[in-house]
Amino acid sequence: MPAYLPDAVSTFAAILTTVCWLPQVIHLFRTRDTRAISLAMQIAFACGVALWLVFGFMIGNWPLIVANAVTLVLAGAIIALKIVHG
Amino acid sequence: MPAYLPDAVSTFAAILTTVCWLPQVIHLFRTRDTRAISLAMQIAFACGVALWLVFGFMIGNWPLIVANAVTLVLAGAIIALKIVHG
Repeated sequence: MPAYLPDAVSTFAAILTTVCWLPQVIHLFRTRDTRAISLAMQIAFACGVALWLVFGFMIGNWPLIVANAVTLVLAGAIIALKIVHG
Repeated sequence: MPAYLPDAVSTFAAILTTVCWLPQVIHLFRTRDTRAISLAMQIAFACGVALWLVFGFMIGNWPLIVANAVTLVLAGAIIALKIVHG
């Protein structure tokens, strides 16, 4: 296996699991219908992402820090939309 | 910083960002209301998780493999519920 392959796979994985939250935020912002979103799920997810961010700082891994900082902002936006629109 | 701290933080992060999908699946299964879920988001997320799983196998990291295998099953269930209930 070429040495760059794990890095390439993890970078592509990080981009997908980060950017995927953008259509969800846009969808909720447009429709204002957040009933299908579980608030418990979103809060647990945001706490988990915050811990991944702490872990990123601990091991000094910038891709991990950037990906989780962006995800935390988008997950926070979903929580705010859920609280506002119920 | 104690040597075990990054491992403890990443383990707790992995548990949260995996288990958090369970209340969402239960919520959608009970209400059958999946309108607020973005299908594009869920498919992108599932592809990303599948790549994290591939990366886990590449580097032989069992916590990464287990966490992403469980998340993939739950994300797949959300896609199935979204397709069935629209």
